[in-house]
Amino acid sequence: MSGAVELVTAGILVIGDEILSGRTKDRNIGYIAEYLTGIGIDLREVRVVPDIEDEIVGAVNALRARYTYVFTTGGIGPTHDDITADSIAKAFGVPIHVDPRARAMLLEYIKPEDLNEARLRMARIPAGAELVPNPVSKAPGFWIGNVIVMAGVPTIMQAMLDQVAPKLRTGVQVLSETVRANAREGDIGGPLKLIAEAHPDVTIGSYPFLDEDGRPNSNLVVRSRDPEKLAAAVAAVRAMAAAIPRR
Amino acid sequence: MSGAVELVTAGILVIGDEILSGRTKDRNIGYIAEYLTGIGIDLREVRVVPDIEDEIVGAVNALRARYTYVFTTGGIGPTHDDITADSIAKAFGVPIHVDPRARAMLLEYIKPEDLNEARLRMARIPAGAELVPNPVSKAPGFWIGNVIVMAGVPTIMQAMLDQVAPKLRTGVQVLSETVRANAREGDIGGPLKLIAEAHPDVTIGSYPFLDEDGRPNSNLVVRSRDPEKLAAAVAAVRAMAAAIPRR
Repeated sequence: MSGAVELVTAGILVIGDEILSGRTKDRNIGYIAEYLTGIGIDLREVRVVPDIEDEIVGAVNALRARYTYVFTTGGIGPTHDDITADSIAKAFGVPIHVDPRARAMLLEYIKPEDLNEARLRMARIPAGAELVPNPVSKAPGFWIGNVIVMAGVPTIMQAMLDQVAPKLRTGVQVLSETVRANAREGDIGGPLKLIAEAHPDVTIGSYPFLDEDGRPNSNLVVRSRDPEKLAAAVAAVRAMAAAIPRR
Repeated sequence: MSGAVELVTAGILVIGDEILSGRTKDRNIGYIAEYLTGIGIDLREVRVVPDIEDEIVGAVNALRARYTYVFTTGGIGPTHDDITADSIAKAFGVPIHVDPRARAMLLEYIKPEDLNEARLRMARIPAGAELVPNPVSKAPGFWIGNVIVMAGVPTIMQAMLDQVAPKLRTGVQVLSETVRANAREGDIGGPLKLIAEAHPDVTIGSYPFLDEDGRPNSNLVVRSRDPEKLAAAVAAVRAMAAAIPRR
């Protein structure tokens, strides 16, 4: 592999007071991160903001200017604290109304007599957005510009991501190999730094852990889009680790 | 309670490629969020950035200008990818050297002959910072200006937070009560909005869940620093929920 590789990048925006209060523990960031890595999209940044319009608008506009895609989670339900759709419309400067396509989707799940004002909130979609189908509970997400708006409930978010993924521009997948060093981080930090400097097209991360014998150990994660460069760096890391006395 | 309440706010900055690649699932955000809520500090924003100096510097400077405190996690180990301390020094425009106090702490855990250049990296502390002791593995965190720099390993981060907490300015704790609505979100969205509008000094969040009978249900979380206003809003929410037919 050689030449310029097109990088496809992403940011995540998690919207919700319940994450910031600690009441709900986020499970979407790690899931989306792993998913994007798997399809060759580089997740570059995550932000978590409260249910406050100005905060959402500011974060969406900052992230969409920087990355190929922005994925948001949360705030698209039927209650007064669900202000994501209106905030996204404001960020893009477009009107927002009940979308007939979204309304029809809701009616697959909700009886016409139950389609009250609160539930119709879930059909409010910024003008110009494409819908993201929700196979779980019908109320759709949407895609406007480079921003993809998804539910906060993990099962629904995951189903929406499956709907969106085939339409995303994807990059060359980052290849990754993990070398178990059988050594303490502090014993390999010096030689590892030299290897990192000699292999500028790979990134090497060092992650300490306690191994099955209760001893401090290190996983060295080598990452690159180029298989040959990856292999060269991995060989250097393996040789280095093998030369460090275990203790 | 009446009059102005001093608000103490915070941001979290998670530093690490491994979180953005999905290889490591963050467990610190939720822990810190709950901890801060418990001592009356409002967590307002979280960001996750990669191990890139410019990204760390930019995020630290954005967050420290906005909030009373900024808590960072990750990037203070002995390897080349641990660049948090240097990035924080750059953000504050101060020099960074091996700190004799931090070196002494390391020597409580590490034999003098093992204190190589890599391990001494963990004693590099920006000028003017106070140290945050690390009861687990000695290598300290630090506190400079309003920024508190902690380890990424959850057990160590948690021990550092316990060291720091008694020195933090804390606010009046937010009181919270959860009302189980025994109703679908879409059935309560309308009346709940009216209650939220009538009680501007409380925030009301609605969180759907599937209950033990497999039926869609909703938890309504009412939050306020004022116990009387909280009680009034909770009473209104309970009365509303009781009036919605269960189905």
